[in-house]
Amino acid sequence: MGSKRTDRRGFLKGGAALAGGLTLGAIEPASGQTPAHEHTFIKGSKELIAYGERSRFVTSVRIAHPVGGRPSPDAFGLVFHVASPLQDSVGVITPSSLHFVGTTRGSFVPEIDPREHRLLIHGMVDRPLTFTMEDLKRLPSVTRLHFMECAGNRHNGRQKTVQETHGMTSCAEWTGVLLSTLLKECGVKAGASWFVAEGSEEVKGASSMPIAKAMDDCLVAYGMNGEALRPQNGFPLRLMAPGFEGIFHTKYLRRIKLVDRYYLNYNDFGHLDSDPKVAALDYQIGPKSVITFPSGEQRLPGRGFYEISGLAWSGGGAIRTVEVSTDGGRKWNRAEIKGTAQRMAHTRFGYQWNWDGNETEILSRCTDEIGQVQPTREQVAKYWNVPLERNYRVPGLDNSVQPWRIARDGSVTNGLA
Amino acid sequence: MGSKRTDRRGFLKGGAALAGGLTLGAIEPASGQTPAHEHTFIKGSKELIAYGERSRFVTSVRIAHPVGGRPSPDAFGLVFHVASPLQDSVGVITPSSLHFVGTTRGSFVPEIDPREHRLLIHGMVDRPLTFTMEDLKRLPSVTRLHFMECAGNRHNGRQKTVQETHGMTSCAEWTGVLLSTLLKECGVKAGASWFVAEGSEEVKGASSMPIAKAMDDCLVAYGMNGEALRPQNGFPLRLMAPGFEGIFHTKYLRRIKLVDRYYLNYNDFGHLDSDPKVAALDYQIGPKSVITFPSGEQRLPGRGFYEISGLAWSGGGAIRTVEVSTDGGRKWNRAEIKGTAQRMAHTRFGYQWNWDGNETEILSRCTDEIGQVQPTREQVAKYWNVPLERNYRVPGLDNSVQPWRIARDGSVTNGLA
Repeated sequence: MGSKRTDRRGFLKGGAALAGGLTLGAIEPASGQTPAHEHTFIKGSKELIAYGERSRFVTSVRIAHPVGGRPSPDAFGLVFHVASPLQDSVGVITPSSLHFVGTTRGSFVPEIDPREHRLLIHGMVDRPLTFTMEDLKRLPSVTRLHFMECAGNRHNGRQKTVQETHGMTSCAEWTGVLLSTLLKECGVKAGASWFVAEGSEEVKGASSMPIAKAMDDCLVAYGMNGEALRPQNGFPLRLMAPGFEGIFHTKYLRRIKLVDRYYLNYNDFGHLDSDPKVAALDYQIGPKSVITFPSGEQRLPGRGFYEISGLAWSGGGAIRTVEVSTDGGRKWNRAEIKGTAQRMAHTRFGYQWNWDGNETEILSRCTDEIGQVQPTREQVAKYWNVPLERNYRVPGLDNSVQPWRIARDGSVTNGLA
Repeated sequence: MGSKRTDRRGFLKGGAALAGGLTLGAIEPASGQTPAHEHTFIKGSKELIAYGERSRFVTSVRIAHPVGGRPSPDAFGLVFHVASPLQDSVGVITPSSLHFVGTTRGSFVPEIDPREHRLLIHGMVDRPLTFTMEDLKRLPSVTRLHFMECAGNRHNGRQKTVQETHGMTSCAEWTGVLLSTLLKECGVKAGASWFVAEGSEEVKGASSMPIAKAMDDCLVAYGMNGEALRPQNGFPLRLMAPGFEGIFHTKYLRRIKLVDRYYLNYNDFGHLDSDPKVAALDYQIGPKSVITFPSGEQRLPGRGFYEISGLAWSGGGAIRTVEVSTDGGRKWNRAEIKGTAQRMAHTRFGYQWNWDGNETEILSRCTDEIGQVQPTREQVAKYWNVPLERNYRVPGLDNSVQPWRIARDGSVTNGLA
């Protein structure tokens, strides 16, 4: 029993996985009856026709992110960050209603009338311009799948679920105008080397970014997953800086100023460095991956076949490979990448596994298109010069490997606990 | 004035488009002030943290589809089909709340407890099997972008908006198990050449499909746009038959039976033919495209630069090219395909246009990867042997070109009216 064979054409038959415990009931050959289904109906309504809702049986929700292992304050006005339920995720799109939210002001968000909203581009340009939302929507658009991640998306042994360890990242289909398109209209003056973005919040935005990033792939986005941005994600307009830390994706974007030097700014979480080279180096996320199933507080019903599933992403470009270990990191196996990996986007991976019912630890690691490999916990601790403890807290980005421990009873817990 | 130049690097400057009417206000160089924004805040709440909502300024909604130009009955129990607001669409994902709905029972939908739901596969198989939702989620998954379209998505001169003419199509990221994976577990018997799918509805499903389709790309889907299917779209499980008419994508999927012949079935809208070759030939959608901006009942604020935007799709595979005419079909220009066209998926296209302010008609047509070209209205009328009238009604699929007429005041109306 407990063979590790994972025949692609026989997960359930032939004894291997089926004998391993997959709960399949063989049907009596003669019956052919459809299982009886007694169910009620959801009553039609004008509201449900206009804009649909999910089933009451689907209860996946966001939670206040427990920064550093401590839960955030409660839901009324003081929640700092809101984490996405990655344990329930499928595919690579995060539904807009479940997209993570990083806030600077608690859970209150600006309510902006898009007819009144303007984007001003000024500073070192030939011609400062103000754009209405209608102006922006007339211009050539791009649609791209991109992840976003908060630099505070750090994991430690106090967190229990993948929502707690990694829920400050999400991925959506973004639509808008390339920032380069707008800057070409304004005319970039010689010597303009950085830009600063400002949103309609009290704490208005992030640090400077190099002009090279603006001309490369920054996006002024008004669309998200096929409709307008949501208020919690910057309605009506936000800056997308693909692959950069979430803080650079300025919400409620109203002003972009071109400047000739690095500006140490009012919202430089983690970037309090007056050396522009050092500061800019830290902007880029990843490479990073995490197993979402099975993950903390989930439970395997028994030995047998499972597809281990997870997400990988990198600010360095597309994910090239993902590897999974099911024996605590001794042996690494190539996982399957589902579909075509997009640049700076969540990438779904799967690994076909026949659990033998013994205690073990499962992990994933990824490599991106420029060859960066997701680091071990030891490497990240050394980089930040913090002691390698199960509950360490690094001052900056943490893209180290996450282990999940599986007990003999099928329960899954944080391997760092 | 009114130059037709569409310089990619100068939409607004240099006189061409700007002089043509784009409403840009140049900013006083000395000011550099951020526009004053007086706005209120959306109060945080437990509900909004758990599951976000759209802005109250975003009011795009689905409507009852006016089949054949007649509006469907009202919202309480008798709405037959619900159309997606394509005029507001961006990118290629349709938000699940706005995905079109084809119903067989009005707006009431089954409310199914996923813990009770089962999928039975039987008939000409070596081993009939019943799958729980948990079983299915343990198996190897795939995630794919696919459109769906109702065969009743026909346009005529009585309809006013693109939601009315084309709103019975949508596109989503679907996650599930390949039907071929399940059939391999059951073992397909020699001689099994067709299959029939049944859902938990009173009118239970569609006609037979060839086994070849099942083994090629059919998907038993439990995920949609990153979360569970919505009840209106088949929660907890639906069959995806990529590129086939919507009626084949059986919702609330509970039974698949393998058979040795074509079954003329109880839900064969448009397929009332006992010749399996004829019946099966009509299953595949497209190639089809439509301009979503500018479209019926929208209004251009004035001459000048616009990006014409639209969607193209085909049951025959990926969209290869899209062409746009801005002079009533005399000259056709290659449009830009946004991103990488996926197989059997909506594909966003754009065409950069400088409107000179004169009355005209705009149209789009597409070609798919197997060389099929979207037909003219004349060709479709001839195919179905119906008179070529502005308000013609064909008995089957209508993938003909849709014209939008633009008046001198910028108003847009249905070119078939």
